Order: sequence, then C-alpha cells, then structure tokens
Amino acid sequence: MNSSAINRQILLASRPQGEPTVDNFRLVETPVPALAEGQVLVRNHYLSLDPYMRGRMNDGKSYAAPQPLDAVMIGGTAGEVVESRNANFKAGDRVVGMGGWQEYQLVDASQRGVLQKVDTTHIPLSAYLGAVGMPGVTAWYGLVKIIQAKAGQTVVVSAASGAVGSAVGQLAKARGARAVGIAGGADKCRYVVEELGFDACIDYKEHKDLKSLSAALKQACPDGIDGHFENVGGMILDAVLMRANAFSRVALCGMISGYNGEPIPLQFPQLLLSNRMSIEGFIVSEHMEIWPEALKELGTLVATGKLKYRETVAQGIAAAPEAFLGLLKGRNFGKQLVKLV
Amino acid sequence: MNSSAINRQILLASRPQGEPTVDNFRLVETPVPALAEGQVLVRNHYLSLDPYMRGRMNDGKSYAAPQPLDAVMIGGTAGEVVESRNANFKAGDRVVGMGGWQEYQLVDASQRGVLQKVDTTHIPLSAYLGAVGMPGVTAWYGLVKIIQAKAGQTVVVSAASGAVGSAVGQLAKARGARAVGIAGGADKCRYVVEELGFDACIDYKEHKDLKSLSAALKQACPDGIDGHFENVGGMILDAVLMRANAFSRVALCGMISGYNGEPIPLQFPQLLLSNRMSIEGFIVSEHMEIWPEALKELGTLVATGKLKYRETVAQGIAAAPEAFLGLLKGRNFGKQLVKLV
Repeated sequence: MNSSAINRQILLASRPQGEPTVDNFRLVETPVPALAEGQVLVRNHYLSLDPYMRGRMNDGKSYAAPQPLDAVMIGGTAGEVVESRNANFKAGDRVVGMGGWQEYQLVDASQRGVLQKVDTTHIPLSAYLGAVGMPGVTAWYGLVKIIQAKAGQTVVVSAASGAVGSAVGQLAKARGARAVGIAGGADKCRYVVEELGFDACIDYKEHKDLKSLSAALKQACPDGIDGHFENVGGMILDAVLMRANAFSRVALCGMISGYNGEPIPLQFPQLLLSNRMSIEGFIVSEHMEIWPEALKELGTLVATGKLKYRETVAQGIAAAPEAFLGLLKGRNFGKQLVKLV
Repeated sequence: MNSSAINRQILLASRPQGEPTVDNFRLVETPVPALAEGQVLVRNHYLSLDPYMRGRMNDGKSYAAPQPLDAVMIGGTAGEVVESRNANFKAGDRVVGMGGWQEYQLVDASQRGVLQKVDTTHIPLSAYLGAVGMPGVTAWYGLVKIIQAKAGQTVVVSAASGAVGSAVGQLAKARGARAVGIAGGADKCRYVVEELGFDACIDYKEHKDLKSLSAALKQACPDGIDGHFENVGGMILDAVLMRANAFSRVALCGMISGYNGEPIPLQFPQLLLSNRMSIEGFIVSEHMEIWPEALKELGTLVATGKLKYRETVAQGIAAAPEAFLGLLKGRNFGKQLVKLV
C-alpha cells in the first residue's frame, strides 16, 4: 500500500425529497494522499449501514449536523491498518472507526477515540459494527437504562431481527424477562423465535390496521407490556400503548416509519397519562459513560455464543447505496454491512 | 348537631356521552346516621372540584376505578368536626379528607390517613384543597421530580392560572427558572404575569392554529423550552414540542382537551427522538412519599405570602354540578371550590 492507491468513495450528491434513490449518491475515485506525521491509513473491510444515516441526509434541524453535500457519507467502519505514522498503531492492527462510505480512510489517530483497536481472536471483525458495536450498545442502553427490564416483565421490540432489535430481545431474555419481537415477514419472525430465543414474534405485515396489531400484541403479551424498545414508530407505537401496563417505559430509539416525511402521529397520547408511562428518546453516542460496561457484557455474550446475530452483506463499495435503500425498506435480515475486501 | 340532621348529597346519576351535563348528576337528601364507636362526623365547609373527576365519570379503563353510579361523587373536602366518637378528633377540629360532594361526611377515622387535622392559624382552610393540598403537591411533584427545573431554564405550564398551573410557575420562579404560562383569555394571562410573577403568558384563545401558537411560544421562550408541565394536551403539547430543547422533559399531569373523547393525537412524536426528550405521565396520589416535603415548602410559601393563588367559589352544594361543568370549560379563575357553610 502506498499513496498512489485509488480510494473509491460514495458522496451525498443531493438531498432526497421523500424516499431516497441511488441518484442521491455519487461514486468518485480519489488518490490516497501521503501520510503526515501522526496519521494512520486504514483499509476499510466493512462499512456499517444504519437507519440513522437517513436522518443525516436531510437538511432540517435534528440532533446532529446534516451530512454535507459532496462529502463522503458518514458511517462506521471496521478494517485494518495498512500504513502508520503514529506510534500507537502499526500495519496489521484491526480497528474500528467512523471511516465513512469509502475504501480507505486517512485519520489523524492522535485524536482520542477516533480509531479503536479491536481483538478479533474470539469476536469477528464485523461484529464490532453490530452486536459489539454501536447497535449493541444502543440496545443495551435502551433496555438497561431506560426500560430497566426486570425478571418477569414483558419487553417488546420492533425491528426485532435487526442489529439493535435482536440484541434487545436477547439481553431482555438474559435478564429473565419475556421478549416479544415485531418484525416484517414470516422468515424474520421464525428466526427471532427459533434462533434468537424470543418468546414470540409478530409479523407486522400480517396486521394492516391498529385493531389487528393490538389484538396480536394482546395474544403475545398476556400480562401486558412493561417495556418497549421502539425502532419503527407509527402504528406499532400506537398498538403498544394500547397494551401497555401501568408504569411501563418506552425507549425511543428510532422511528423509521417516518424517515421519509410520512406523518406518524401518536393517536392516543392520553394513554401515557392513564398508564402513568414514560417515553424517552435517546442517542447512544451521548451516553459514552456506559459504553465500557455495555461492551463488556456484549463482547462476552458474543464470544461465548450466547448473543446471536445475523448479517446481510453487500459486496463492494458501489453496492452501498442500493443496500442502504434496502435497509430503509427492511429488505436486510440482521445487520446490514458492505464488505469491501 | 345530631343524627337528625339532613345531609344533601350529589350523586352520579348517569355517565356522560361526550360532554357532561347537569343531568348526569342528582341531588338527594338523606338523614345523617348516628355515630358508631370510632366514627367522626364532619361538616364540610369546602368541596374541591378538580378536572380528574371527569375521568372518573367514565366507565372505561383508567388508573382509578370509575365513580359508581347512584353514589356520592368523590372529591376532596375541608371542614370541621361536629361530633366525634374517636379519641383522635374532637368537635371544632379543622380537617381535610375525601368527603365527596355532600354537606356532611361520617368517617371511620381510625383508618389511617382518611382524615387529616390542619392548622388554620396562618393558612386558610380552603388552601388545603388548593396550594397546600393535592393541586399544590401535584405541581411540586411534576416540577421537582419529573421536570427537575433548574435555575436559568425555561418552564412552560398550561392552564397556568389554575390551582396546579399557578403553583407550577411560582415554584419554577422560586428555583430561578423562567416561567411561561398558557391560559385562556387576557384576564387570566394578566393575572399570571402581574399577580403571580410569571415572565410571560400566552392566551391560547388568540392562537387558533399550531403555527400561530408555536410562534407565540418562540417569542415567549427565546431560549427554547427545557421543561413543560401539561394539563391540557392537544395542540398545546404539539406546539411545545416544536419549541422544546434537547433533553427537555414533560410532566404529563392532565389532558383536559380530550376528556370528553375528542381526538388529541400528538402530531410529531419524532420530536421526542430528535430532541432526546422524555415525557412522563403521573398521578400524585401514587407518590405519597413526597407529600411531607412538598407540603412543607408549599405551606411555608403560602403562610409567608410568597405563593399566591386565586379561588372561584360557588355557593351551596346544589351549585356543584354547574361549577364543575364550568371548570371543564375553563370558566373558573384559579381553584374551583364549592362553599357549603
């Protein structure tokens, strides 16, 4: 590897009006510049695709600055150091970072936290973008800190076969709670119950209206719902509230059903009052203090085979936009990655 | 006083379909029975009318059992012991309890907490139904325990001139926060600012749509909203969310705008996520552990003239139904009472 290498990158070319398309992205090739002192060149092996990226494509007010136009799309990456002018890193080190949608990243590794060395002896490199990475810690924070799941309680999670949802349910089971998933399609629901060990899973595609979905939740949660981890919003959140117990808690992690601007009103907010519920939105990157504890539990569970996960892997950087659009439509099955090497 | 006295009572005669009317109530006269050992006969001087009573008139699932038909309407009362066969009470004691909509109550005062002696040396008897009673403690719990108001923050409260809302704003000011009220009409708003010392008050009757109300909130809350105490719901809650700051907190105490079955959807629940907000419904009677601390602060503030309040007083038990219907429409100004003596 040297500075004559070509780096293929995906830029945000335009902001989507409603549903994004591949035309919102542009593939470019740029030479990899020479390393300055303190810098590390990483070859990205895996690119993580995550729903939050949809929000960054918009220009509106949100918790994070918008993704700039004509710049490399942001995103988590896992890869290998190929060249280093930093004493803390050497060629061959496995690392995770926020390398973005590109094959190589050149980083000033003297900035604390920008690049993390990881041990792939017992944990696959890609898992550091999923169960032992941001999605896993997201699941842990919502379940442990907001829902505060306890043995004997019932916890529901939407997008249950996804990177976050699958960890939520398994962490709930590890705490002695009943775990009920909501996912799209019979295959995903079978996987959630048979492979991941959830107690039940509801295929939302089988329930076109609120009454039907609420009835399915009643059947799957005979003792009501004590905690809910929300990744989807819309009708799912309405249905959960209709089955929620007194003092139940909702961790609001995502509302993918409204990411393209669809109206997703909460129909009966008065249930928050009559059930004395709490609902809390969160972004896991604002709670760095819990990452070590969460990663320790998640890493141990993955290394010992007790926390299972599934990956959908697109091949090559050029496939990233299509794979991302598929993720927004739920076409992935488990953690969506792009394999670059 | 003796057992030949006549007790006039208001019963729930029928459940309202939508908006209640006076026909849902019935006035009856019953003789006061003779006292058994341990009992106390109280002549109620004041009856408290509160929005929560509307919910009890319904038969549906809620946090409390429905008010039974053909039974005395529940409600807080303040009065005087007129006869006692209980060693802990004597004629002349001033007491508060849950005597209901009636002139006399006969209570087994050996049940702990059913009747509380109060000191009217520095605090008027009626205040124990308002600022130094359930409404005051409700304000205190939501502001101190849920909103966790701090100096320099901005706190908004709806129904700001009411028994709860007026205490919320004054307690927020006492903590160094900016207090912004929402109330119905210029008179109430003037009172909230000029008499109660709020920093600003918005007349919701001047703002017929969400855009207008949100713009008024922006003007009244130039640094955004850090805490909101909700008594009304509907468009007010939507408008507050549009001006809410990151990590802001909503104490959900009441949603009077939907008490007659009106739809009150929350239009943009995604703001809870993008602002990493929390919203929590509560019922103050489920948090008895905080009453002593809250009542101590509230009592001191009222006795020293630092916590102001206003009362609307209807005369005589027969006036209770009309007064209650007026309360639901915001016709009262401050705490709604019925004076019986």
